Formats: sequence, C-alpha cells, structure tokens
Amino acid sequence: MKIPPVKGTRDFYPPDMAIHNFIVDGWKKVSLRNGFEEYDGPIFEYLKMYQIKSGDEIVEQLFSLTDRGGRDLALRPEITPTLARMVNQQINALPKPIKWFSVPRLLRAERPQKGRLREFFQWNIDIIGVNQSMADAEIIFTTVDYLRDAGLTPKDIKVRISSRKLLAAVLKSYGVPDEKLEPLYVVLDKKAKLPPETFEQMLSEQVPDKETLNKILEFMSIDSIPELGELIKAESDEFTAYTEIKTVLGSLEIMGVGDYCIYDPSIVRGLAYYTGIVFEVHDAVGDLRAICGGGRYDNLLRDFGGPAISATGMGMGDCVLEILLKERGLLESKIHRRGLDYFITFAEGYGGGTIYKIAAELRSRGFSAAFSYKPKSGLSKQLKEASAQMAKKCLIVGQEYVDKKQLVVKDMATGEQELINVDEFLSQLGARDQ
Amino acid sequence: MKIPPVKGTRDFYPPDMAIHNFIVDGWKKVSLRNGFEEYDGPIFEYLKMYQIKSGDEIVEQLFSLTDRGGRDLALRPEITPTLARMVNQQINALPKPIKWFSVPRLLRAERPQKGRLREFFQWNIDIIGVNQSMADAEIIFTTVDYLRDAGLTPKDIKVRISSRKLLAAVLKSYGVPDEKLEPLYVVLDKKAKLPPETFEQMLSEQVPDKETLNKILEFMSIDSIPELGELIKAESDEFTAYTEIKTVLGSLEIMGVGDYCIYDPSIVRGLAYYTGIVFEVHDAVGDLRAICGGGRYDNLLRDFGGPAISATGMGMGDCVLEILLKERGLLESKIHRRGLDYFITFAEGYGGGTIYKIAAELRSRGFSAAFSYKPKSGLSKQLKEASAQMAKKCLIVGQEYVDKKQLVVKDMATGEQELINVDEFLSQLGARDQ
Repeated sequence: MKIPPVKGTRDFYPPDMAIHNFIVDGWKKVSLRNGFEEYDGPIFEYLKMYQIKSGDEIVEQLFSLTDRGGRDLALRPEITPTLARMVNQQINALPKPIKWFSVPRLLRAERPQKGRLREFFQWNIDIIGVNQSMADAEIIFTTVDYLRDAGLTPKDIKVRISSRKLLAAVLKSYGVPDEKLEPLYVVLDKKAKLPPETFEQMLSEQVPDKETLNKILEFMSIDSIPELGELIKAESDEFTAYTEIKTVLGSLEIMGVGDYCIYDPSIVRGLAYYTGIVFEVHDAVGDLRAICGGGRYDNLLRDFGGPAISATGMGMGDCVLEILLKERGLLESKIHRRGLDYFITFAEGYGGGTIYKIAAELRSRGFSAAFSYKPKSGLSKQLKEASAQMAKKCLIVGQEYVDKKQLVVKDMATGEQELINVDEFLSQLGARDQ
Repeated sequence: MKIPPVKGTRDFYPPDMAIHNFIVDGWKKVSLRNGFEEYDGPIFEYLKMYQIKSGDEIVEQLFSLTDRGGRDLALRPEITPTLARMVNQQINALPKPIKWFSVPRLLRAERPQKGRLREFFQWNIDIIGVNQSMADAEIIFTTVDYLRDAGLTPKDIKVRISSRKLLAAVLKSYGVPDEKLEPLYVVLDKKAKLPPETFEQMLSEQVPDKETLNKILEFMSIDSIPELGELIKAESDEFTAYTEIKTVLGSLEIMGVGDYCIYDPSIVRGLAYYTGIVFEVHDAVGDLRAICGGGRYDNLLRDFGGPAISATGMGMGDCVLEILLKERGLLESKIHRRGLDYFITFAEGYGGGTIYKIAAELRSRGFSAAFSYKPKSGLSKQLKEASAQMAKKCLIVGQEYVDKKQLVVKDMATGEQELINVDEFLSQLGARDQ
C-alpha cells in the first residue's frame, strides 16, 4: 500500500535537511548575538485563543481538531498568541525587558503556492516591556543582521518601514472615524499589490468623499522623510508618530544598516494587532512575497488577560527566504553535508573486531566514524562506500596491523597515504572540539 | 481573557528551552559522529498510514483531524511510518546503507502521567538495507554512546537485549501456532511489569496446555547466554537467532560498551512490526518507564508499498530521559543559558549613538551584545541589568570616550576594570569563531 505525503507539506531528505538546518542555525546564531533567548510552546492551543486577536485571514486558515475530551484545539498558525499566553502566565517572575526568539513549526490550511506552504517554519523575535522606539530599531537591526549575514546586500533586499500610529493619526486628522480605520487598513495594505486604478476604486468604496480620498492618496505617495516632515504639523499626534519613524531610521543608520532601510507608507500589515512602527522586508526585484514582517503591538498581552505592556516583534518564514537565497546563489557554497571524518576499511583477509574498536574509540573522542556493514566487501568497494559517505579520511586495517599494529591513513581528497602505529595515531589525534 | 495551555503539552520558557536544546544537541552530535544523517517529515500524515502497521496502542492514541478537502489526517505519533514512506519514494536514488536520524516532535492522545506527555520529542536512528546483525549492534552502540556521553554509567542504566526471531522460533518449537504468536507477544511483553502470579494467570489464558506453559516460563527465566546455549538445538531456527544475539553482544563488548548490555528474554516490545533483535534501555533502579527501545523490522518498507528491505532502529523520548538526567544531577552543571558576551553601558551624561554603534559592531563580529533600552537609567541600574542578563563583560562609555575615545572594560566575574582605546579594543578582539 503506497501512501503519498499530504499536499503543502515537505519531506526533508538529508540534503533538504542540511538547507533547513543552515537557515535555522543562522536564525539562532543571530538571535543569540543580539541578546535574545529561545523559547517554544506546544504545536496546538485552544482554538478560541486564535480567535481573540489574529487576523481574519489566519483564523480562516486554521487546522482545527477536537480531542477525546471534546476540546476544540487548533494547530498553531503563528506563535505570537502562545508568546502572549506564556508571558502573561509568568509576567511578575520574568526579568524585563523580555527579549525572546523562537523558530516554531507552523500550520495554515491555505492553498499551497510559490513561497507559501501549509507547513512551514518561522523565525520570531520579540521585545516585550519596552515602549522606546529603540526596541523597534533593535528588532529591525536583528532582522537585517541575519539577512546581511546570509549574504544579502542592500541591492537584494529593502526593509520598508512605516507606522500604524502615524497612519491612524493622519487618517483621523482627515476626518476618518475610528470604526472605519480597520477596514481602511485592509484596503491600504493592498496598495503595492494592486494596479493603481483597482486600488483607487477599492479605496473610494471605503472613502466616498473625494477630497478625503485625494488627501489619503497624497499621503500614501510620499516616501521621503523630509517631504513627510513638511506635511506633519508640530505637536500633533502625527508628529509623535513621525518622530518615532525618524528616530528608528536614525538608529538603524548609526548601527550601519541604514542603506537597507527606507520609509514606505504603503506598508500597513494584515494582522489586526499592530499599533505602531510596522515593517516588511521585500526582495528588490519585487517578484516574491514579503520575506518577513513585523511591528509594534501594544494591546496583545492585555487582550490575552495580562497587563497593558507594549511589545514589538518580527516573523520570517523559511519558504520565501529559501527561494531568495537559492536564486542569489547563497546556499550551495555554504551547505555542508555529513562529511564523515573517518571511514575505517579492512584490507582483504582481515576484518572485524579491530575496526569496530577503532570506530568506537574515534566516536568517543568526538570524531564521526563509520565502516562497511558488508563483511565480505573488497577494499576497493569499501573505499567507494567511503566516497559515497563523503569521508575525509580512510583508515585501512590490514596485514601491517597484524604484523606491527600499523594503520594506513588515506586522505580522500589528495589520495596521500601514511603508515602509522595505531597508538601513535590515536595519541596524535587527541579529542575533537565539540 | 485568560486561556490555559492544553493538558499534556509543555511551555518551554528559556530555562526549559536550554535543557531541551542540551538534550537535542546531544542526540544530534552523537548521531552525526556515528555516521547518521538527519531527516524530518511533516507533523501530519494521512490517517490510514498509521493504521497499516503501528501498534494498536498507538492507533488508539492518535490526534486526528479532517482538512477542508475532507481528507482524514493524523498528527504523527511516531516517525517510523514517515521514514518508510520517504525511503520507499526514493528507494532507487538513495545510496545504501541508509543511516538516518531525526528528532521529531510527536503527539499522542494519552492520559498525561510521569514521563508520558501528549506532546514530546523523540530521537530516532535507523539503518536501512543491512541484514547483518552488525547494524543492530551499531544502533545499540549509538544509543549507549549518547547515554554514556550524557554521564550515565552501567550502574545507572542497562540495555536489555532480546530477539523476536528467537522467541518466535522457540514458541513454534513448543507447538504454538503462527496465529497465536502476536497475542502471546502482548502478554509476554508484560512479564517485567506484572506480579508473577498475575503474569502466569494471563499467560495460562493464552496457553492452556500446562507443559507448554512451563516450557515458556522456563525459557523466559533464562537470562544468561551460556545457559540459553544449552537449551538451543544446533542447526535449528532458534540457533540462527541465538547466534545473532551472541554476535551483537560480542560486538558491543569489543566496542567498549559490553558492561551496559545484558540478555533479557522478557524484552518483547509492544509494536507489531519488530521481527528480530529487540532491546530496551531501563534505569537500573527500575522506577521509571523504559528510556528507549528499538529493534529490527523486516517487513515495514514492504508493507508501505516498497521493496522487502530489512531495517533496524531505535526511538528515545525526551520525557523519561530528562527525569533520569535530573535525578542523577547530570543537567545543572551542563546547562548554559544566554551568557551575553558584552553589555554596553553609558555613564551618566553620555549615551545614545556610540552604544548602538559598538553593539552593532560586536554583533557583526559574532559576539553577543546588548544594552539598556532605558535611555535615562543611571550606570548602577544598567550594571544591574547586565548582571540579570548574565553578561560576562561590561563596556562603559563615558567622559573618557568623549575626551580620548577610551572605554572601560569591566569583567563582571572578577570586577576588574581596564581603560582602553576603542579602536585598539576592537582590533584586539578580532572575530569570534562561530
């Protein structure tokens, strides 16, 4: 009986796993050096948890299940609700600021397409308990620190930064009522994804007044900070939000990643919970989905039954990132597969115990070691097996071993061979840094 | 609105995550040095896949769900069926032998109790395509290689080795018919878990004939290889299986882990798919569940629509292992949390840009670095924050920096301070090995 894998999931064969580990290890390394600590939660939570504050799109895409006790559960489509739950549970005991990262496996029941799968991994970084916009700058810096480390230059990617707070203040100053803001965000978020006429058509359905419409379109067309500054009145709500963006961009400039970052008012973000600085990273060519996105969310912890503590964070999926890194040729050269340190072979007429013993000894010293499981293979077949397993060196145990306890050490890259006493070999070897 | 986590799942706060990572990193390191390559699969598969060949107990404990297309899926309760599916899909392209490992997240809808949760992680190693019992020895060696590396001695744990093939041959030689074998395995598997009278009572229900019953009880009481040898007739089916066990134990002796391993006929294993050597690792005190188990499975790939290729493997969950390592005091000393390399502080009256810049520079060189997000904190508060974040060193930027570009480098363990020019500091620092 042959059963296929479920559509939208991936099988990670060893070469795929090597790529996956390369990406995840990079995320972890950069998180740690930026001062974040790792956490994780369960693969499922109570269904209602996701209905509190996630975007409608996400709730529609939940994989839900009912357990034997009749509880409605859902596979996690994002980890932020879990983060909010966990932080709230220990809010008094946790040292502040909370700087946490995670690389969760996530599930969304959407139609699989390029860069979008039903099962994927997502790098998440969050800073909780810091109002200052420096925390937003840190989130963006850490994001760029990874992408730059992966080999992407300002020519390959751009961080597009905006502010929900600025957008809200500006819209309100144009007379848009509070209850109209959320539906307007949904439309404005589509600006970069739609032809201008379609976008204006959709917008005019939300904003029937022609003058207001034009004002909004004008605001959305300004992508330079000095120009924006001319539009903003001092001491207004807009001014506070405008100053935040300026400060964030200034800090990123000081931290050496200014050339990756631009102001872009069309960045609104789909999720309902953003309240301040928001950003997305896109490839410069613009033929892929967003590589990642994030921003400040002021109310999420409170909405999950905790105190009113502000937070800011970022999520980066592995699918679009992997496509981009492949396209730019930034994977092949960096992926190392197994690369066994030693493959131990026996010359014709000699085999068995000595080989097992040497392999066990090498392994306990931290070296990777293997040997053929076919006890009657000839030496040349064993050397072939060593090559297939990408062994760096072969040890050949033969007559010299019987006579004088000597091994042949063969370098598989150069073909060079050396005859050495086994005890001398082991004492020279020492233990490997692990 | 406050929502609890789902029963039987775990939240990994940073200190828990550090333990989790310590365990998983150990599994990965030992797998690699024993020549295994990593793979992974999806968190769910088609429900019917688990109904083919998993143990009844596992199928009863599935978390199942139906997707929008009406497909019946199940969260994976073990990874072996996925392994069989993946290997079958690429059977001709994969170099043999296949030596793979994985550390999957698994889900079982069982009642949570000590050492048993609904969500857990399991180390899996498998060798596919090798009939020789050396592959069984390698699986057991790799298992012990990890447990020994984790600090467990032969006084802490024992590998109990037996053979389904031997058991089947012996039972058949006693006149037990083929179709009676599977239900008998289920009873025999309970020998070590039940009082002798209860066990004999259950056994007599399966084996009404008194003479056969006594023979089985006698066989099950022999736990020495020489004694077993006296019972086994040469050139019988039992003899082949007996020789296999002797060979495996002999190889493990040669590889230096003989003192961990014993023959124990009461090891039968619950899963239906085992066909040869089987084993379990138990703590010596015997108050915990099995730490791990495994064995040879000859028919699984064929049952999943592939060729008749033999395989042998092992699975070790994280829950019992963690309890044991904690009990033996083998965790505390080895767990390293964040331990920031540098915390950058500013002395009163000076702050801002320089600190961000130095932090960014240190991070890009691979050092972990952080600073306070409270721009008006005094120096002593910042140093407290540095301690809370377990910083090894603090850099203090103050008047000396303004005057002469000099930093104070403070060792947080010794309290020693050094005044150094920032460029000199950076050039001495170099880049960190990553």
